[in-house]
Amino acid sequence: MTALLTPTRRIRRTPFSDGVEAAGVKAYTVYNHMLLPTLFRSPEEDYRHLKSAVQVWDVAVERQVELRGPDAGRLMQMLTPRDLRGMLPGQCYYVPIVDETGGMLNDPVAVKISDDRWWISIADSDLLYWVKGLANGWRLDVLVDEPDVSPLAIQGPHADDLMAEVFGDAIRDVRFFRYGYFDFQGRSLLIARSGYSKQGGFEIYVEGSDIGMPLWNALMEAGKKWDVRAGCPNGAERIEGGLLSYGSDMTDDNTPHECGLGKFCDTQTAIGCIGRDALLRVAKEGPIQQIRAVEIEGGPLPVCDRWWPIKAGKKTVGRISSAAWSWDHEVNVAVGMVKLSHWDDGDEVMVETPEGPRAAVVREKFWA
Amino acid sequence: MTALLTPTRRIRRTPFSDGVEAAGVKAYTVYNHMLLPTLFRSPEEDYRHLKSAVQVWDVAVERQVELRGPDAGRLMQMLTPRDLRGMLPGQCYYVPIVDETGGMLNDPVAVKISDDRWWISIADSDLLYWVKGLANGWRLDVLVDEPDVSPLAIQGPHADDLMAEVFGDAIRDVRFFRYGYFDFQGRSLLIARSGYSKQGGFEIYVEGSDIGMPLWNALMEAGKKWDVRAGCPNGAERIEGGLLSYGSDMTDDNTPHECGLGKFCDTQTAIGCIGRDALLRVAKEGPIQQIRAVEIEGGPLPVCDRWWPIKAGKKTVGRISSAAWSWDHEVNVAVGMVKLSHWDDGDEVMVETPEGPRAAVVREKFWA
Repeated sequence: MTALLTPTRRIRRTPFSDGVEAAGVKAYTVYNHMLLPTLFRSPEEDYRHLKSAVQVWDVAVERQVELRGPDAGRLMQMLTPRDLRGMLPGQCYYVPIVDETGGMLNDPVAVKISDDRWWISIADSDLLYWVKGLANGWRLDVLVDEPDVSPLAIQGPHADDLMAEVFGDAIRDVRFFRYGYFDFQGRSLLIARSGYSKQGGFEIYVEGSDIGMPLWNALMEAGKKWDVRAGCPNGAERIEGGLLSYGSDMTDDNTPHECGLGKFCDTQTAIGCIGRDALLRVAKEGPIQQIRAVEIEGGPLPVCDRWWPIKAGKKTVGRISSAAWSWDHEVNVAVGMVKLSHWDDGDEVMVETPEGPRAAVVREKFWA
Repeated sequence: MTALLTPTRRIRRTPFSDGVEAAGVKAYTVYNHMLLPTLFRSPEEDYRHLKSAVQVWDVAVERQVELRGPDAGRLMQMLTPRDLRGMLPGQCYYVPIVDETGGMLNDPVAVKISDDRWWISIADSDLLYWVKGLANGWRLDVLVDEPDVSPLAIQGPHADDLMAEVFGDAIRDVRFFRYGYFDFQGRSLLIARSGYSKQGGFEIYVEGSDIGMPLWNALMEAGKKWDVRAGCPNGAERIEGGLLSYGSDMTDDNTPHECGLGKFCDTQTAIGCIGRDALLRVAKEGPIQQIRAVEIEGGPLPVCDRWWPIKAGKKTVGRISSAAWSWDHEVNVAVGMVKLSHWDDGDEVMVETPEGPRAAVVREKFWA
């Protein structure tokens, strides 16, 4: 498929779109009704550059849902089976969000700003609607809306160097999934050590669209010595690292346990979580299918735009949801939901690809 | 902007995607996390063909939210300020959906199947999340989910002829925004006289993805004598007809009254509607800005992918959200939100377009 994306107002531009266009973006996807760049030079060149230099990513599509008011903490705990009691301002938590059946509605990062103020940095679904519906129905004393906050990610081995150049050396001390406040042109910005790659880096929560391009330009200018470029999440790199994509690798049909996110579920103690009752049994018995790394043999495959069945003999034992050629590992790396009977490390299966059946091996661990 | 759309599993294919590709689709948009074709031959050729022949549209992106159970009717009324008491099975209603502040969350078509079963055929937002949140919070006795139903639209002056060929002459008697059940290959399908054009036609609620392509092929085969083609909603045609696009022309910032949908609001009698209190005042006093047709003078303009300010002298009095060249009217037809001071028929304004300021005239009525 090599079709164009038709622009309309409905697919929103971001505060950084002018910079992305000037950098020569070649392809987009749409994420939370907004433009997310997917390609600048070539998949391989983007991949190698991300792993060796530093990139600035327009990830404004990670829209924020803000909870504010006396019931904000209670509402936040209703959303997730992760126990939030020990969470402090200054921390970020990866939180599975589940409905009353334990089905995944989103897999965002929660940012605790204070006891009565949270941001949820969301994956691709209108989580705002679920949270607003609950707040209304449960008559909670909380304001829920989408603030003017657009994340900008700095990813790659030179991320610390670039960020220190713009924000000062103190940024190097921010720990993983922690955040601090740093000044830019008189504005205090929340900056976390996080991001959708395994190359290390930061996410700047750019509050106020007006400073989007000034910040973009400052980063591009300061990063010249490390060959900074506009970049974007890279399919191969994120699969190597075992980073999941909501909507691709999991949907509301799946429990967090199926998605390998059981370690983020404190189902016994997450009192108040709406999906808790539904998850208690799966937490005890375990799921019967789970997300696994899968190595598909042979040369590079076409893009995975639909589920590819995983077979053992004539039996379907799972399906691939993401796949990409890994230039570093010289194999097709893939993410699949695999049944209990075939999910052990080294289990040999077949994958029905657009190029016919291919031998494949299930892996316990991802590559990065 | 001439960027490609990157395919992933997250952007879902539809039961008709194979047919759309075989027909030579050139461009897509993404709508409800799914592919919606936007271009087959050229905008003008698609437009003229839609107005003279008949087209089959893959509008599976109009996902359904199903409400089922004893509280289904109560929940449906909570969603909208339109009074649903008189609505009967067999009818479809265009219903603004509002939040507790009266802000538009979606503008779908509600299909009443029985007193305790409804489908909501949605515009581009995850309405499912809002409805599920309310059902949970208000502890209603209702099941809310997304059934395997994919609408397929037949639009154009020969829509009745084509549909009669496939489903029998009784289909000609279905009235506007009514539906009936018709057989195809032993399956009973709900078919309504409706659709996102002013050329007349039907929407087939295809229940069961497996019959998607058989039905597509049957329609293509039967329609040869009327030059049937794969088509899609056409920007110019829908603006001429005053059909709004949620996300482009209105957002959750807007009340239904601002969107010119006051006639679908029975705010006094829609008891139970969540946004009713917020809307009572605007219903009485009227909005201070409203959607209007706007004619922009001069030759064809680039695509409207962001708001274009509407000016009267130095004052901003509104913004254009959709625009297209109308080959029939030989003018740029546009949709804009215009302030009270400048919304009368014939009011002269300026629009800041990507090609500089252009004279424009506000119109009371759309063109079709």
